[in-house]
Amino acid sequence: MTTHTTPTELSDDDATVIARTVAAIQPHDLEAGAQAAARQAQLTKPPGSIGRLEAVAERIAAMTGQPRPHLDRRLVIVAAGDHGVAARGVSAYPSEVTAQMVANFLEGGAAINVLASHAGARVRVVDAGVAGETPQHPDLLRLRIAPGTADFTRAPAMSTVDAERALAAGIALFTAERADEGVDIVACGEMGISNSTAAAAIIAAVTGHTARAVTGRGTGIDDARFEAKVAAIEEALALHQPQQVDGVQLLAAIGGFEIGVLAGVYLAAAAARVPAVLDGLISTSAALVATRIAPGAGEYLIAGHRSVEPGHAAALAHLQLEPLLDLGLRLGEGTGAALAMTLCVAACRLLDEMATFEDAGVTDAAGVVPPEA
Amino acid sequence: MTTHTTPTELSDDDATVIARTVAAIQPHDLEAGAQAAARQAQLTKPPGSIGRLEAVAERIAAMTGQPRPHLDRRLVIVAAGDHGVAARGVSAYPSEVTAQMVANFLEGGAAINVLASHAGARVRVVDAGVAGETPQHPDLLRLRIAPGTADFTRAPAMSTVDAERALAAGIALFTAERADEGVDIVACGEMGISNSTAAAAIIAAVTGHTARAVTGRGTGIDDARFEAKVAAIEEALALHQPQQVDGVQLLAAIGGFEIGVLAGVYLAAAAARVPAVLDGLISTSAALVATRIAPGAGEYLIAGHRSVEPGHAAALAHLQLEPLLDLGLRLGEGTGAALAMTLCVAACRLLDEMATFEDAGVTDAAGVVPPEA
Repeated sequence: MTTHTTPTELSDDDATVIARTVAAIQPHDLEAGAQAAARQAQLTKPPGSIGRLEAVAERIAAMTGQPRPHLDRRLVIVAAGDHGVAARGVSAYPSEVTAQMVANFLEGGAAINVLASHAGARVRVVDAGVAGETPQHPDLLRLRIAPGTADFTRAPAMSTVDAERALAAGIALFTAERADEGVDIVACGEMGISNSTAAAAIIAAVTGHTARAVTGRGTGIDDARFEAKVAAIEEALALHQPQQVDGVQLLAAIGGFEIGVLAGVYLAAAAARVPAVLDGLISTSAALVATRIAPGAGEYLIAGHRSVEPGHAAALAHLQLEPLLDLGLRLGEGTGAALAMTLCVAACRLLDEMATFEDAGVTDAAGVVPPEA
Repeated sequence: MTTHTTPTELSDDDATVIARTVAAIQPHDLEAGAQAAARQAQLTKPPGSIGRLEAVAERIAAMTGQPRPHLDRRLVIVAAGDHGVAARGVSAYPSEVTAQMVANFLEGGAAINVLASHAGARVRVVDAGVAGETPQHPDLLRLRIAPGTADFTRAPAMSTVDAERALAAGIALFTAERADEGVDIVACGEMGISNSTAAAAIIAAVTGHTARAVTGRGTGIDDARFEAKVAAIEEALALHQPQQVDGVQLLAAIGGFEIGVLAGVYLAAAAARVPAVLDGLISTSAALVATRIAPGAGEYLIAGHRSVEPGHAAALAHLQLEPLLDLGLRLGEGTGAALAMTLCVAACRLLDEMATFEDAGVTDAAGVVPPEA
């Protein structure tokens, strides 16, 4: 990642970078989608029999503009950050775990390392704003915007400048990865003690659900911590009134540095016509930030899985996305997104590699016997 | 597959082969399952956060007797057969498509070829009883017990001798594959015009549901064919009264040659402590035959996906299995099983490859900071 633009170089015109990226987002290529659907109908299977994988492949065709898309260059981005609201006792784990897990990602011992390998994807880790020290490592982008956000029950989580910096850094990261090794599909995950509190706050603000309705048990909290978490979100919503603000202000008020980086990745992926696979609660809350900045970015998102977190379903419904997997995951890191990435690859391989009725000499549903049969 | 026992050699003592296989089926190795669960609790993730994949890995550990199972040698078996009940106009496609699709499997152009490649699995195809001619091919086991079953609305689908022959052939196939190249996990699919009619009849007989309740649209039939399909199943149930007969008689009365071969594979896989992944309606109906012969075989089955066929849910409920995927598939061939196989591989890789809290120096949920942290 030696070619990455450093945060210092970015800071002059982050707002310009964001605006340029948003302006570059185009709608789906409907012609490519229609070509994919036409091919789908000629493949040696009853029409519609591959179920949702047919729609996935056709949607990726429309995203990429390729009637037979290839998803060979696969990237998993894991953004990490700490949260001032952790001081409110909303988590089962102390904030020191965020830096420890970043080290684990870099050593290859975390669940996302295994599942990225399983999906044939490379992993890039971002220290967007971890409180503890993170190591120098070739696979780690050390932004370190701040040592965690401020406690958003008392003040904005971050300044507007830092929110733009996080977004622009996500854009720069994706752009550099695409230039360096290529990206045909990206899966987005995160790590950050207490970040399910920030994510639930964003989801409540955007969807209009109450804090309690979108708050879950995160990594496994007891009743007392759950009540503290609901109260913290209610206080933040009352303090910042983030329901109607723009995406940058939403991120600044109640977001996180890792959430900002992922939102930037979604914007850049959409601008580059690259499908981005959502993971769970936090990665999907970042998609709410991105689509508040640029509604058209939603066309380039794929819902990987349905988390057990109650706010996740609300966020996916707002994005009008139906998840591919429902396995009771609640880990984050991009684990559900990496698993779903393999389904996207399978869907596109089916579209590209299957024989047509005519190729294979198979009689179709209309009873048309191919010439060579 | 040159080492395979030929059908002629098998025919003397098929009943003995089946009985010996059934007798070899042992219950789960609970100690191995407990060791897997104990390791699961030490991995760098909140307890339970990998959701159903944790249970899948622990169950495969108990099946295989290996606390950290490896699923490196993967086999997909696709068994094909034709059905006399096709004469009743129950299908959207003519029977000639069965042989055409067998040729397509051997050429690598079908959906299952793509998805087996995606899963890193080899494919073996069985002509269990196809009406049309099938080619000589190294990947095709040509049993050809008969050119399709009899119309089971008028007579048993096959003789008891042929039912035993199909079951023993499935056992021999699995046993030879295991001896030749090894099998750590097997996914089972099928092809056979009108075989969703036979499968629905088996499901109605075993679960006690009405024919109408378990009958679906198969590859996509209209209302008239749907009514013909329900009527054919009702007639077969009235003629053969298969509700209480044993598994071999059930197969003989209303089954299919490909269903018998798959049932034999399930028995052999269970006897060898190898997990077998079910596909959709027909492959799961074969599991009902197998578990009627040997209830303990059910412990070695994994439900791959939930088909759109209404009878599939009834069959899975009877087997007390919860499917891993729900993608609206209704193709058969083993497609859903091959996709689910990749989830089983992922689950076992997570169990085996992830770092423990102690290995990685990560603080656990109890706040225990590891010595090196």
